[in-house]
Amino acid sequence: MAIVLFTDFGASDLYAGQVEAVLAREAPGERVVHLLHEAPMFDPRASAHLLAALVSRLPPGHVYLCVVDPGVGSARGAVVMEAGGGWFVGPDNGLLSVVAARASARRLWRLVRQPPGVSVSFHGRDLFAPIAAAVATGRFPDQRVAAATALDVDLGADDLPEIVYVDHYGNAFTGLRAAGLPTDRRLFARGRAIAHARVFAATAPGAPFWYENSAGLVEIAANGESAAQMLGLTIGDPVRWA
Amino acid sequence: MAIVLFTDFGASDLYAGQVEAVLAREAPGERVVHLLHEAPMFDPRASAHLLAALVSRLPPGHVYLCVVDPGVGSARGAVVMEAGGGWFVGPDNGLLSVVAARASARRLWRLVRQPPGVSVSFHGRDLFAPIAAAVATGRFPDQRVAAATALDVDLGADDLPEIVYVDHYGNAFTGLRAAGLPTDRRLFARGRAIAHARVFAATAPGAPFWYENSAGLVEIAANGESAAQMLGLTIGDPVRWA
Amino acid sequence: MAIVLFTDFGASDLYAGQVEAVLAREAPGERVVHLLHEAPMFDPRASAHLLAALVSRLPPGHVYLCVVDPGVGSARGAVVMEAGGGWFVGPDNGLLSVVAARASARRLWRLVRQPPGVSVSFHGRDLFAPIAAAVATGRFPDQRVAAATALDVDLGADDLPEIVYVDHYGNAFTGLRAAGLPTDRRLFARGRAIAHARVFAATAPGAPFWYENSAGLVEIAANGESAAQMLGLTIGDPVRWA
Repeated sequence: MAIVLFTDFGASDLYAGQVEAVLAREAPGERVVHLLHEAPMFDPRASAHLLAALVSRLPPGHVYLCVVDPGVGSARGAVVMEAGGGWFVGPDNGLLSVVAARASARRLWRLVRQPPGVSVSFHGRDLFAPIAAAVATGRFPDQRVAAATALDVDLGADDLPEIVYVDHYGNAFTGLRAAGLPTDRRLFARGRAIAHARVFAATAPGAPFWYENSAGLVEIAANGESAAQMLGLTIGDPVRWA
Repeated sequence: MAIVLFTDFGASDLYAGQVEAVLAREAPGERVVHLLHEAPMFDPRASAHLLAALVSRLPPGHVYLCVVDPGVGSARGAVVMEAGGGWFVGPDNGLLSVVAARASARRLWRLVRQPPGVSVSFHGRDLFAPIAAAVATGRFPDQRVAAATALDVDLGADDLPEIVYVDHYGNAFTGLRAAGLPTDRRLFARGRAIAHARVFAATAPGAPFWYENSAGLVEIAANGESAAQMLGLTIGDPVRWA
Repeated sequence: MAIVLFTDFGASDLYAGQVEAVLAREAPGERVVHLLHEAPMFDPRASAHLLAALVSRLPPGHVYLCVVDPGVGSARGAVVMEAGGGWFVGPDNGLLSVVAARASARRLWRLVRQPPGVSVSFHGRDLFAPIAAAVATGRFPDQRVAAATALDVDLGADDLPEIVYVDHYGNAFTGLRAAGLPTDRRLFARGRAIAHARVFAATAPGAPFWYENSAGLVEIAANGESAAQMLGLTIGDPVRWA
């Protein structure tokens, strides 16, 4: 399987590559997948809902190295978690908690001993990458972790009725799971009522609609245009059903 | 060999990583190369000419997973193709047709059976990635494809006298192949006549010129500046010889 | 170990992928790490200082393929270097010289024979990638290089009191190494005096501070905001100690 990176490090920036250079030494045989480095910046809550949705549609067994960590260098905890058939390594700031709350079973460990030489600002490279590499290569880091029962920050399993991500086409992801929703409902965002459509190709250009996107979330989109721009949507904007 | 991705998924976005996470399971031993995720968006025609040029300069034998697919979810077809020593998987909307038309020989199959659980909007992850993985690992997907003789959308082998790509330096690629062109010709773009230069270092800063770029295409460039910005060039702008 | 790419090719652009497609053929068993493709554009000097800092914090043994090369196609030389436990391949324009000057020992070779078919504008793909692949796979390219004693362009080992990089959070890296600096010093940039803080979490939102960043450099940052935007900092801006 692979070590899958989910961070707000910036897709064009120099942080993800440093993490991979460390993984290349610590886990030379493991594939590294850059899932997303533009997770909602400094926003563990929106990121947690996006992460949970993405993970639900990917093959099981990956090790997810997750870093959206505005509190790096503070006293916030760090955890290793097994949940839903995958492994997760990251800060204990809510980021992993939606995955945790929705999993039928999970196991949790808390990082209790840092290796020497950890920088104050880049735990992704110095702390989480070596741990993820150890997990991925079957060398569970018993000396550095202790079993734990609960996360410090727990956002729960409920959906989040907000915009959690805007992709480069201008599609706006909500934190609402779409499975089983009646398709005659209208979604309100920025004062506008938005009807359902099944696929892009079934809609007129320029008319926003909602549908179940490939991550299983309710998404606001528009055929051939940016729905986010059209409606002025940004991360954190509330949505509600009519 | 590698599985080479050519898409308009966005280099910073979350789609390419999901495709790679699927490939990590379906083709664990194969390298994945992210050739380009900023192909001309929703534009299979410009993308087709860019793809054909890039492929012509890369080592043979790769499996290209190509997705520029504004019609995803509609009735457009999907194909597997062997051409010019490489393999290609993608939608039948013209995207693969320039490669096909310029190859001395090609073989074509049409996807006739979808696996279960394919999303309506992300065939890259759910449909094309498993097929590309199967081809790359020598498990040709006989059960899902049927031999075909022609593409539904065929753009032909001719050059395209338009801007097909602008790189981050501001160099503007045309769809014109440069090999064998007399270098005393002047190219017209946006009402301006542009002379030839052999290399960047041979020109004065700020003077646009055309030359044969590393993809074998006629490119409009300027030494140390953005030719696209200087001349106001965008994808789709026509060019012609004086 | 890995082949680590450090370039100004653009993280979203089509150059890095072409390099990796060549490496996939020439070094099929070697991992490729995309460390940075947004190195200061056309700026070997700032890039050289950034590269030296990043390399100092990464595991030894990697092969670095480095391209910030405004003089491609001119008579500038090209080199292979072993320094500080790593290997480096790139143009002889100063880019590798800070790493060289700070290493306790180094060995240098000059490229003296180009393979056939090298394009005038993309030495990264056609010249440097095959050389880096040869070094990484233990097939040192004796036929193409000759031992050399000095670089043509040598920037020396000294720090650079300028901004050399701005990350996507808006943190501004200087070319000053931070180790051992007294933390009661104030840094001047754009006419503003900036005090030290140890970690982001220890500062008030909106107050710029300097600290030793994860690359070992003096960095100007602000908690939860863009210091670069707040202070108007760009690459090349001078800084000095009060």
